Amino acid sequence: MRPSGRNLSDLRAISIEPGVVKHAEGSCLIRMGDTQVICTASIEERTPPFLRNTGLGWVTAEYGMLPRATNTRNRREAASGKQTGRTVEIQRLIGRSLRAGIDRSALGERQITVDCDVIQADGGTRCAAITGGWVALRLAVNKLLKAGDVVSDPVVDHVAAISCGIYAGQPVVDLDYAEDSVAGVDGNFIMLGSGRLVEVQMSAEGATFSRGEMGQLMDLAEAGCAELVAAQRAAL
Amino acid sequence: MRPSGRNLSDLRAISIEPGVVKHAEGSCLIRMGDTQVICTASIEERTPPFLRNTGLGWVTAEYGMLPRATNTRNRREAASGKQTGRTVEIQRLIGRSLRAGIDRSALGERQITVDCDVIQADGGTRCAAITGGWVALRLAVNKLLKAGDVVSDPVVDHVAAISCGIYAGQPVVDLDYAEDSVAGVDGNFIMLGSGRLVEVQMSAEGATFSRGEMGQLMDLAEAGCAELVAAQRAAL
Amino acid sequence: MRPSGRNLSDLRAISIEPGVVKHAEGSCLIRMGDTQVICTASIEERTPPFLRNTGLGWVTAEYGMLPRATNTRNRREAASGKQTGRTVEIQRLIGRSLRAGIDRSALGERQITVDCDVIQADGGTRCAAITGGWVALRLAVNKLLKAGDVVSDPVVDHVAAISCGIYAGQPVVDLDYAEDSVAGVDGNFIMLGSGRLVEVQMSAEGATFSRGEMGQLMDLAEAGCAELVAAQRAAL
Amino acid sequence: MRPSGRNLSDLRAISIEPGVVKHAEGSCLIRMGDTQVICTASIEERTPPFLRNTGLGWVTAEYGMLPRATNTRNRREAASGKQTGRTVEIQRLIGRSLRAGIDRSALGERQITVDCDVIQADGGTRCAAITGGWVALRLAVNKLLKAGDVVSDPVVDHVAAISCGIYAGQPVVDLDYAEDSVAGVDGNFIMLGSGRLVEVQMSAEGATFSRGEMGQLMDLAEAGCAELVAAQRAAL
Amino acid sequence: MRPSGRNLSDLRAISIEPGVVKHAEGSCLIRMGDTQVICTASIEERTPPFLRNTGLGWVTAEYGMLPRATNTRNRREAASGKQTGRTVEIQRLIGRSLRAGIDRSALGERQITVDCDVIQADGGTRCAAITGGWVALRLAVNKLLKAGDVVSDPVVDHVAAISCGIYAGQPVVDLDYAEDSVAGVDGNFIMLGSGRLVEVQMSAEGATFSRGEMGQLMDLAEAGCAELVAAQRAAL
Amino acid sequence: MRPSGRNLSDLRAISIEPGVVKHAEGSCLIRMGDTQVICTASIEERTPPFLRNTGLGWVTAEYGMLPRATNTRNRREAASGKQTGRTVEIQRLIGRSLRAGIDRSALGERQITVDCDVIQADGGTRCAAITGGWVALRLAVNKLLKAGDVVSDPVVDHVAAISCGIYAGQPVVDLDYAEDSVAGVDGNFIMLGSGRLVEVQMSAEGATFSRGEMGQLMDLAEAGCAELVAAQRAAL
Repeated sequence: MRPSGRNLSDLRAISIEPGVVKHAEGSCLIRMGDTQVICTASIEERTPPFLRNTGLGWVTAEYGMLPRATNTRNRREAASGKQTGRTVEIQRLIGRSLRAGIDRSALGERQITVDCDVIQADGGTRCAAITGGWVALRLAVNKLLKAGDVVSDPVVDHVAAISCGIYAGQPVVDLDYAEDSVAGVDGNFIMLGSGRLVEVQMSAEGATFSRGEMGQLMDLAEAGCAELVAAQRAAL
Repeated sequence: MRPSGRNLSDLRAISIEPGVVKHAEGSCLIRMGDTQVICTASIEERTPPFLRNTGLGWVTAEYGMLPRATNTRNRREAASGKQTGRTVEIQRLIGRSLRAGIDRSALGERQITVDCDVIQADGGTRCAAITGGWVALRLAVNKLLKAGDVVSDPVVDHVAAISCGIYAGQPVVDLDYAEDSVAGVDGNFIMLGSGRLVEVQMSAEGATFSRGEMGQLMDLAEAGCAELVAAQRAAL
Repeated sequence: MRPSGRNLSDLRAISIEPGVVKHAEGSCLIRMGDTQVICTASIEERTPPFLRNTGLGWVTAEYGMLPRATNTRNRREAASGKQTGRTVEIQRLIGRSLRAGIDRSALGERQITVDCDVIQADGGTRCAAITGGWVALRLAVNKLLKAGDVVSDPVVDHVAAISCGIYAGQPVVDLDYAEDSVAGVDGNFIMLGSGRLVEVQMSAEGATFSRGEMGQLMDLAEAGCAELVAAQRAAL
Repeated sequence: MRPSGRNLSDLRAISIEPGVVKHAEGSCLIRMGDTQVICTASIEERTPPFLRNTGLGWVTAEYGMLPRATNTRNRREAASGKQTGRTVEIQRLIGRSLRAGIDRSALGERQITVDCDVIQADGGTRCAAITGGWVALRLAVNKLLKAGDVVSDPVVDHVAAISCGIYAGQPVVDLDYAEDSVAGVDGNFIMLGSGRLVEVQMSAEGATFSRGEMGQLMDLAEAGCAELVAAQRAAL
Repeated sequence: MRPSGRNLSDLRAISIEPGVVKHAEGSCLIRMGDTQVICTASIEERTPPFLRNTGLGWVTAEYGMLPRATNTRNRREAASGKQTGRTVEIQRLIGRSLRAGIDRSALGERQITVDCDVIQADGGTRCAAITGGWVALRLAVNKLLKAGDVVSDPVVDHVAAISCGIYAGQPVVDLDYAEDSVAGVDGNFIMLGSGRLVEVQMSAEGATFSRGEMGQLMDLAEAGCAELVAAQRAAL
Repeated sequence: MRPSGRNLSDLRAISIEPGVVKHAEGSCLIRMGDTQVICTASIEERTPPFLRNTGLGWVTAEYGMLPRATNTRNRREAASGKQTGRTVEIQRLIGRSLRAGIDRSALGERQITVDCDVIQADGGTRCAAITGGWVALRLAVNKLLKAGDVVSDPVVDHVAAISCGIYAGQPVVDLDYAEDSVAGVDGNFIMLGSGRLVEVQMSAEGATFSRGEMGQLMDLAEAGCAELVAAQRAAL
């Protein structure tokens, strides 16, 4: 029933290639089917002004998409002079999610910026960005640990994200563009390796959903995130 | 236990005053405790370009806050030259939520813009904006119906929104600023009058939550939205 | 002869309600007929850079209009990314006018920002903003006096503003929108409680005026400002 | 008593050199003492959208200042990405003033843009821009008349502008920078060749003024504008 | 003598991988040593306004760099709200260069946009963008030819670009970052497959150069571009 | 053969009038035929952040054009809110070129900004800006020397710039607009008084050029720059 022939609970092929950008403290290329995102983590030895002298660090994220990552060319945000509302929303979500896996006190007064740039888009780019962004972050923190710049590990758990939605009346996981573009209900679940929830965003456009359906989607998400966490482990 | 002395499932005092702006096709002033939002609905006889010749209408929203609606003065967005990421996120949510209660085909090729401007903020402004915005929208559509500009009612159901969160380890509803500013987990539930879900946004900052807690929050939200729908009915 | 049936020298009904925004150091809602403006005064314990170490304080103002304060919806300035020339001109006028009633040395090195936001517009919004803004400013300074933060009163006199113009060949005061939109000559007079002039702005669009007419307009303005000062006194 | 040794009612040396920019339909370099402004008038055979199919033309103005026209270098507005409030205010004034001397129906559906660029500033730049801008406008309209593009002359009268203020307690005319920078009260009078008033802008910063003083300033302005109109005539 | 151990006239390893982005009409990943650029060509069936009804097509280019393509993180241009002067200069150069290899009449009234996004930077990114951009353009035009949308081939010749400079007193070709960052003289040569020159940009910062040195650099450039053209051929 | 009747190697009439803006530390009006540029040099006793505590000074440039400097009116960059790519490119070139003639260590930690504003354009404005900008810079440095603020002369040589191109198949120098607008190949040569090269920019639009033609253009440029340096000497 799914355009790709997948079962309702099947994720697409996952690939996480670490170390793809030589300059970054941490990096990976994550592929979820045809969705491809380059994630880099950059360490700066200073925090945003509101954290000065608190002993706490910060993790933030930025998101972008190459103009031709999509089926028709999108206007380059740098050329139009501003990030779209969609971009701003996504990068706030990525940063918030990754912070949930970090002990900011153990990190100390430094900032790690995770850049997620979509090279090719086929649905689920924000989830891929979170899952891959966590790997880049993990690698950057490893460098801090190895150099003795932090003593106790600030990474407290994995963070992974998966999309779910109702497609053709059925709950499905990891929607590709063909599904995403017609699903009346879809959203994202972000979870820790422990299975605890970090963020739930379920949204209807041209449809609504029942509490029972919400439960089915959460079942799919739990299984999906567990698979992603396993892929993160395998990549490191 | 709550700073306001309310029980875990108590909403604040709700007041919805319709017709507060004489120029608008629909308007109200909604108060949830000390949170006050002016909502207006403006009808335009044209749609955004992507809907031309589709026979479908559009409902969109814009959100703003007077600089001194908050405890310390915020910089005026018009002066800083751009809307913050928070503003953009909120107004996209309001528009999406209100569209869930509208039959866009019955509306016809016209656009209704719902402006939600916060006069005084004490937590929960986006939920108040949705609940009040629906009243303004309802009133504007009534005008179209009365004038015979639309024949069948495009408003298919009420839309109401309530915040929930975990405060001091307990699930609470309709957080005021004193609660909201320290809650590690909070979010918003948007529902139809029928109880079906339109949007769920639950987000953790400095904490995470279990699936069991998610269930408790949904229970609170269902009861809260029912009260709000009753208040909308009473105001009309 | 006037659309509202008023005499040439009649002001509209004036109402000034103090304390409408709980967070602000001073605030009021001023109504001149159907024109409604929320004015707040916010105190900051620092001045603009050009006043550092001079011992002098500063009073500045910002002006805005809700998108549907007018008969047809105006584009939100925060969304269009800049304040219009009209807005900039008005807020510079408000700030300059309010400073004329302040002893900046007695105020000391702090800044008071007066925000004037038009909720409903029916002509004369900038004048209402000045007259109401002065009340907000007076209340904020009262707080400083009461707290002992300033010793001698920095408010040296009332500041009030009224529009005048030539409508249908006759000099009239306090033009409403029906008059303002067709008057070939109109402008604003800002005066102290003492009757001394702070600012005169008389401008012709599609007409010109004689020195004799200028004198008649000043007569109207003097009487009008005296009434406004009385209303300010009554409100405090 | 005046820094320049002038009498209270003395203007500075006036020079208007027409035809300084070969590409423009009309142009002049106006000098008021050390203030120098290049004014050009550009004709376009289309009007702003709000005038389409009305048969009416439009005259508008833009104002700029070379970065080093002043004693210390000002940031280039093109580089900072926006025109200051002062610039916007001035160019709106120039446009409004010049329109007062034009029969927009006789002009027909075309627009004339008057650009006023200050090469060297020594006070009174906006007045010089209006007086010189009128000459550029007159020359451009002459071209239209000569070509038969307009039949009856759209220029109905001269427009000239002069600054006045209270300097060291005395009313003075045509303030240079040494006076302007310390005058507590100053402003601009714009008049037709007939002596009728187009615009009065009198403004106090750190002072106020009486109605009697207002009268004295108007006397000075009337004599000053008459001189400027004579200089315009001589230049053509 | 060169940090990389290369001879003065040695290029770095060249790799051009076509077809890396599935959505684009043409694409490649070009590597010049550690410099990596993704180039995509997007066809639109309309031209910029200035070409309407001329029968001529247009080729334009945009350039970007991922924030962590460089040794220290650069601010994302989409976030800062504008492209830097360097970016604007580069993308104008790429577009101009690629147009030199195109018969715009044979292309017909359509536009091809070549996006060049630097994934990893190690000197010479603009040259890699031109050389790789030409491959993407060639592939996109092949699609037009195959579909019969154009009849005669609009690609008239190869376009390739190489940097040259004076490093440690010696003329060198294809500078990497270690050389580029200290070279007092450097620049770029863009050539056709025929060897004719399209663009020469030689620029000194903190040094100057003689006409004899200019000749030596041109010798290096000619040999280098010939190698690049061979690599383009091999990739197709 | 040239529209102006000049020989292939003839420059237009050159005029450099120093001291045209009284406020600037150095200034001149340069005319190359009908091209007229006002150049001013402004000294600031501070450098950009990246030079703090290095002992080195900085020379930078900004470029602008009055809206009606050209045959049809250009939109004012201050009004459109950004400088065009062309402007940015030109001002970067001017700054880079002028720095080639300066010993930044002898200048000390101060910045000189050279503003080049085109009053009337007829081709070759960027070259005129460099040649005239150098005169303004020279005059400003003279002031520093006279005041004893610098001890050894930071100006190490003249900097002059000339355009060359291929017009109607012939190499020509100092192209006016009639030539420039149709030349398929053109560019700019910037040289020191010693004849050493500072910058070469040769660019083809709709044509290409051979290495032999490049040599002919350099011959023309050498002779042209020598004439410009002589004119600079004469003006001082």
